[in-house]
Amino acid sequence: MDNFNFYSPTEFVFGRDRETEAGEYVRKYGGSKVLIHYGGGSAEKSGLLDKVRKSLKESGISFAELGGVQPNPRDTLVYKGIELCKAENVDFILAVGGGSVIDSAKAIAAGVCYDGDFWDFYSGKRVEKALPIGVVLTIAAAGSEGSGDSVITKEDGMLKRATGSDVLRSKFSILDPALTQTLPAYQTACGATDIMAHVFERYFTNTREVEITDRLCEAVLLTMVKETPRVIVDPNNYEARANIMWAGMVAHNGLVGVGRSQDWNSHGIEHELSALYDCAHGAGLAVIMPSWMEFVYKHDVMRFCQMATRVFGCQMDHEHPEVTALEGIRRFREFLHSIGMPINFAELGAKEEDIPNLVEKFGIGDGRTGGFVSLSAEDITAIYKIAVNAKV
Amino acid sequence: MDNFNFYSPTEFVFGRDRETEAGEYVRKYGGSKVLIHYGGGSAEKSGLLDKVRKSLKESGISFAELGGVQPNPRDTLVYKGIELCKAENVDFILAVGGGSVIDSAKAIAAGVCYDGDFWDFYSGKRVEKALPIGVVLTIAAAGSEGSGDSVITKEDGMLKRATGSDVLRSKFSILDPALTQTLPAYQTACGATDIMAHVFERYFTNTREVEITDRLCEAVLLTMVKETPRVIVDPNNYEARANIMWAGMVAHNGLVGVGRSQDWNSHGIEHELSALYDCAHGAGLAVIMPSWMEFVYKHDVMRFCQMATRVFGCQMDHEHPEVTALEGIRRFREFLHSIGMPINFAELGAKEEDIPNLVEKFGIGDGRTGGFVSLSAEDITAIYKIAVNAKV
Repeated sequence: MDNFNFYSPTEFVFGRDRETEAGEYVRKYGGSKVLIHYGGGSAEKSGLLDKVRKSLKESGISFAELGGVQPNPRDTLVYKGIELCKAENVDFILAVGGGSVIDSAKAIAAGVCYDGDFWDFYSGKRVEKALPIGVVLTIAAAGSEGSGDSVITKEDGMLKRATGSDVLRSKFSILDPALTQTLPAYQTACGATDIMAHVFERYFTNTREVEITDRLCEAVLLTMVKETPRVIVDPNNYEARANIMWAGMVAHNGLVGVGRSQDWNSHGIEHELSALYDCAHGAGLAVIMPSWMEFVYKHDVMRFCQMATRVFGCQMDHEHPEVTALEGIRRFREFLHSIGMPINFAELGAKEEDIPNLVEKFGIGDGRTGGFVSLSAEDITAIYKIAVNAKV
Repeated sequence: MDNFNFYSPTEFVFGRDRETEAGEYVRKYGGSKVLIHYGGGSAEKSGLLDKVRKSLKESGISFAELGGVQPNPRDTLVYKGIELCKAENVDFILAVGGGSVIDSAKAIAAGVCYDGDFWDFYSGKRVEKALPIGVVLTIAAAGSEGSGDSVITKEDGMLKRATGSDVLRSKFSILDPALTQTLPAYQTACGATDIMAHVFERYFTNTREVEITDRLCEAVLLTMVKETPRVIVDPNNYEARANIMWAGMVAHNGLVGVGRSQDWNSHGIEHELSALYDCAHGAGLAVIMPSWMEFVYKHDVMRFCQMATRVFGCQMDHEHPEVTALEGIRRFREFLHSIGMPINFAELGAKEEDIPNLVEKFGIGDGRTGGFVSLSAEDITAIYKIAVNAKV
């Protein structure tokens, strides 16, 4: 196990109707003038925003509002949010939504405390200071409610870039699984895929002897394999939604990946797809991740056998471990397809002829990247090509 | 899943030689005058205390010292610590040791900020304020490095009582697995048993549909089943020590038990053994926990089958689930015995004729207690009796 620090100071407030406590928690964590940040009309239509407004008022907290966050959240709205916060003397940002809203809120929180262009933080500069943020989560997917990460897309050129810092971790995150019951099956499945990908990016490691984090990773994956089909069939299944929602947090607050090398190439390779086609991140991951696995599995066949047997219930073929490894990948792709995810370029709406463009935007040049298997531009091209024709 | 809050704000600093950073972390969390609190001579002999002193000096932090914490830490030393802290204007307590030292440090931290008798907190009063504490952990066992809990024994009458509060959670906890390599096999096994018990006390629940926490519990248990025998055979196995040390934290910072009813009767029933005989808590648990399981398993046979199949690798007997449930319990006890733990009264040094006294001290009277199976004094007597003659 490698040396590490683990720090996850967010207070998680989980369960039915907990969003009515938003005002109380803003107050507990020192907010007096809040920016409510949200996405499209669903939070308004469902009555969630009204509940949050009421809760803030009851706690004597005034607020401004900024809606309109899109999936793959844009820099343009972040600039607008920063200006609004400065004009209104906002001291706390409350993100009401999913990963895109939270990521946008984090960008605004950092930008308000910085004299330069907030995009600097998405170009390598470290965030040292940010306004405190809180979260009312509406989608189980990104894990941003428990992480210090944020991904923003620069509209000019559709560049998708990430930043991360402990100061971006939310003070509290309210997770009410009932809020996710209205989510359509497709978005639910995209979220589930993202959660599983967050675990797999940590699972495939070159660090030896990391049984505890292996087992924690598998705990989340096994839960997703069991619970996801249940909410696809019955969107109102509160218990299954609850298990998925907590699994989504555990998948990405850092715990399951401490002390081991990680490999975020699938996320990176996918980011170019969602930036170019504006598709859902989870859908892109369903296309890329099994393809990445097929490309890299020979690097550590036994690790893929472990996934196959422990997560996907395969019988180990001790004479032919490669058969077991490939069967595990096949079952993963089959699982993704069964929950309604695209698994190849055509199903996603991506085009083979865009591959050179995707690889160029990935921006690796003559370099290599990856903590499990180091990939060149040529390798990434090969992975996109596997994804073009993938089948169950 | 039940509604819950989860809050674990401790910064965990994990890995080789991290104890040399103690001064830096005390400073980061605002300490300027420290009480170094520790146990017997081993921290001195091993050179650990000198490393910690050096680190504090290098960070310009002055300190007082109080050693002598015993296993099952006593109120008498806590009173001494409170006085010392007040006399020396201590503003931060650094616990260097295992669960007993950390629990004693928490009691002192609460007592310094309170005008009354600190024992009030161990008699039902809630801790609202405490000095900040930090930890350099030397034993993987109690999980006190990541919890807000503390257990103290009142010397007058050997009453063992607990308290818990988020303000008692340490600011930082340094976990260097190498520090545990000098631990004798018996104490190592006691620690492993305690870790597994912390999980089982959460695992046996009446809350339905808690797959994610079930799986997280099983992740810790599977890790312990794999790694513990390795350190018994080879105490210097750093990797196995590292897995156990992190598992010990995960087992008890709250994560694996959120959103579900729990049952801490095995801990309670054991506490009377270690209070009366001053035996190791883990050894007492090895005697009590499988006996408790045998007494209660009929309450939810399928949950014990889940433990048997998922944790102890039993084949499910679908025609006779009780056979599988009992086989799981049998394998658990066998496992404990294989790592050198006592499994009955004689091996622990306890006496059957003390049972009425043990039950009386448990203090349940005509009441009942337990979140999984509600037990009367008669039931507790029966469990002690199972433990008298338990065999592998």
